[in-house]
Amino acid sequence: MRTLTPADLNPAILNVQYAVRGELAIKADELHDKLKSEDYKDTLPFTKVISSNIGNPQQKGLDQPPITFTRQVAALMEYPPLVEIVKDKWPADVIARAQELQEEIGSVGAYSHSKGIPLIRKHVAQFITERDGYPSDPEDIFLTAGASAGVSLLLNVLITPHKTGILIPIPQYPLYTATLAQYNGTPLPYHLSEPDGWKTSLDEIRAALARSEDAKSDVTPRALVVINPGNPTGALLDVPTMEALVRLCEEHSLVLLADEVYQENLHRRDAHPFHSFKQVVRRLGSPIALVSFHSISKGVFGECGRRGGYFECCNIPADIRALLYKMVSVGLCPPLSGQIGVDCLVRPPKPGDASYPLWKQETDSIHAVLASRTQLMSDRLNALPGVSCVNSPGALYLYPKLELPQKAIDAAHKVGKEADTLYALELLEETGICVVPGSGFGQKDGEHHYRLTCLCPGVEEYVDMLEKFHKQFLQKYAATIA
Amino acid sequence: MRTLTPADLNPAILNVQYAVRGELAIKADELHDKLKSEDYKDTLPFTKVISSNIGNPQQKGLDQPPITFTRQVAALMEYPPLVEIVKDKWPADVIARAQELQEEIGSVGAYSHSKGIPLIRKHVAQFITERDGYPSDPEDIFLTAGASAGVSLLLNVLITPHKTGILIPIPQYPLYTATLAQYNGTPLPYHLSEPDGWKTSLDEIRAALARSEDAKSDVTPRALVVINPGNPTGALLDVPTMEALVRLCEEHSLVLLADEVYQENLHRRDAHPFHSFKQVVRRLGSPIALVSFHSISKGVFGECGRRGGYFECCNIPADIRALLYKMVSVGLCPPLSGQIGVDCLVRPPKPGDASYPLWKQETDSIHAVLASRTQLMSDRLNALPGVSCVNSPGALYLYPKLELPQKAIDAAHKVGKEADTLYALELLEETGICVVPGSGFGQKDGEHHYRLTCLCPGVEEYVDMLEKFHKQFLQKYAATIA
Repeated sequence: MRTLTPADLNPAILNVQYAVRGELAIKADELHDKLKSEDYKDTLPFTKVISSNIGNPQQKGLDQPPITFTRQVAALMEYPPLVEIVKDKWPADVIARAQELQEEIGSVGAYSHSKGIPLIRKHVAQFITERDGYPSDPEDIFLTAGASAGVSLLLNVLITPHKTGILIPIPQYPLYTATLAQYNGTPLPYHLSEPDGWKTSLDEIRAALARSEDAKSDVTPRALVVINPGNPTGALLDVPTMEALVRLCEEHSLVLLADEVYQENLHRRDAHPFHSFKQVVRRLGSPIALVSFHSISKGVFGECGRRGGYFECCNIPADIRALLYKMVSVGLCPPLSGQIGVDCLVRPPKPGDASYPLWKQETDSIHAVLASRTQLMSDRLNALPGVSCVNSPGALYLYPKLELPQKAIDAAHKVGKEADTLYALELLEETGICVVPGSGFGQKDGEHHYRLTCLCPGVEEYVDMLEKFHKQFLQKYAATIA
Repeated sequence: MRTLTPADLNPAILNVQYAVRGELAIKADELHDKLKSEDYKDTLPFTKVISSNIGNPQQKGLDQPPITFTRQVAALMEYPPLVEIVKDKWPADVIARAQELQEEIGSVGAYSHSKGIPLIRKHVAQFITERDGYPSDPEDIFLTAGASAGVSLLLNVLITPHKTGILIPIPQYPLYTATLAQYNGTPLPYHLSEPDGWKTSLDEIRAALARSEDAKSDVTPRALVVINPGNPTGALLDVPTMEALVRLCEEHSLVLLADEVYQENLHRRDAHPFHSFKQVVRRLGSPIALVSFHSISKGVFGECGRRGGYFECCNIPADIRALLYKMVSVGLCPPLSGQIGVDCLVRPPKPGDASYPLWKQETDSIHAVLASRTQLMSDRLNALPGVSCVNSPGALYLYPKLELPQKAIDAAHKVGKEADTLYALELLEETGICVVPGSGFGQKDGEHHYRLTCLCPGVEEYVDMLEKFHKQFLQKYAATIA
């Protein structure tokens, strides 16, 4: 018999790249294992690996606390007889919420409706209605195993065998390029403008469309991906730009895929409020097909491990929603634990509820810590030679730009790597800090960046390490004789 | 702008069929909603919808109880401070298990390793080693969001653009045909032999291979799917057949995809023990590439809503495992709630543990109820005119064969349906019982079947309804004047 080799497999799979969990993350895992081994741990110049490569607030070592309300409800859903023990100890609204959900759902061990539990979809629609001031229909809501599952489904459905173009921002979250590679879609990249705080430029998108409409190309542009607030940029779209994007989708019959998972991650929410694309589309009375994604993994909620989220269809005809329903039914249903998380996300305790004071204190504290940490990191990174960092109003990340010495660039190319990958690898090996090089998100030729999360306890000590490493790196490659 | 229509979408998606949640299930949902409406509920000849279309043991109305040990561990994982309240009330092994997992995992709100939590993969490998008597390596284990997610991944990876043939049993679980349609794979169906208790016949598989190797066809057979115990048939493979299947995979360089999710669902486990393909492959020293799937959704565990499972790679080269790892990393990680479920599945309480007596009583009782219910249903269905039903040793289903009157067949064809679909629709409308017609699983031309689960409290009353309906149906179509 012949042995199976990668050459036997779907070639699309070989092209998939996902840097957030790529080379750097695999190396970080190895170092993490070494630290646990008696033989190796003393050979490393650090005592812990800090995973700044991924927006995973509750991971060990970062330890953003979960919201107590959410977890008490979840515990009661797991083991309903627990109510007898805790009914006089836990807040009344926790008990009431769990009982309401149990009555609707029964056991969390049962498959739910494939689009998600009808009552929770109703609550999502109410949340959207209140957020936007325009109605939302529970039939348009699909609960998902995180936003990624929804994005993957939509791209799978939209990409045909005839070169389907999907406009994606550069830099982007690599889920998009990975999923486009998986389903043989054609990325139509448009650059965000770093000098303008990573602003989305209509001209760039028009230029990308023009390139695809070029005589020699047979690509059909089908959808526009917008990440707002941006990942990795943290940029927040203003309403006039959003309106112009909607008009552009009308003009080119594009489906708008609005990744809005960072809508709660705004550090100055008074000065920079979030506006959803749903609201803009409805206010303009636009007929464009819009799918917006949200998640329980980000914000101050940070419940990544539950795998929960939803997408809302807007102006999507019923026959297409029926196709989406059919596709999600093959996967049976999203995890119940994530669905219950969605309910808590869209229906947090309200003033007057017994859980409200603690919920307010917990969420305020997480917001404040993230905001001050982002500011401090951005200020100190900007003060480093050869580093510039847009201080964005949102998201969990910074995406500093690096001006690297030519000798570092040459040294990297000699081993077949980009210079920011070399930088990130050496940072990891020297400090235990794992970041993702800019090549994973996309950047202009010759530019270098990296993305790091603003999730780190002991931020001063952490930035000290970044600074010390950066200076040593510059010195090392300045001193190299070519 | 042009409005999006189904014709704009990926044509593969339009071809996907998933009968378990198809026409019948959608109709059942509508009836369920009508029963909740004051205006309609009195117009229906039944008071509840019984969802026998899907193996969902814990769903409302079926109410197979969850295992207490599993749920107490899960509740503690959700809210670790709970330990202070329950430490003197809950069994010591529950507390110890939750603390062990918390120490490893930290928060269940954090993403885990994309292949699943290393400690839990180690426990899975230990479970397999003990089950089979051959070693298993945690690096070969991938935790998944249920078995379906694993099957979907493997088919996506194995199917190339060059007509990739996948051998599937008929009848089959429609996940396989649905996923083959999604990824443009070519099903190579082989029929199971109903007169021999749905035995798997090597001759049928050889015939399917011969058809695909036919001069005119350019299909490359790549994998053999075996469902053992069978779904929908409940048939259990004997070891000589398994050995012959492994040799056939060697001969044709086929990857063996072994769907073993019903391995615990054996009603006479002394007479009919389960043997895994992993054990057979190792005992034969065979080099075939094998991927085996297991799940927490079936067995006596029945934790469908958590979305947990795993697959084990056997003889899969490291470079291909690395590709699989890359692909699962794009989806970040399986739900933590499912992963913790897997730990409880593969490490149940042992004799001497405080939880053991209750665990034993709960699992024995579920096994006993399923076995006696299956026997009763099978006996009474076999006593009906025109019904024959293999009394299989395993799985959660029966798949009775129907001899239907020609007039029913004609009436069905007149409305563009198969006669078993007509039968299932009328059964639903008359009794509220939702089953899946045989056309959803595959059958020989001119044959008719339906699949129903053996999950139903009040089995006598339930079978009474089935009998009464069947007799009326025969009468109705016997009396029709053509």
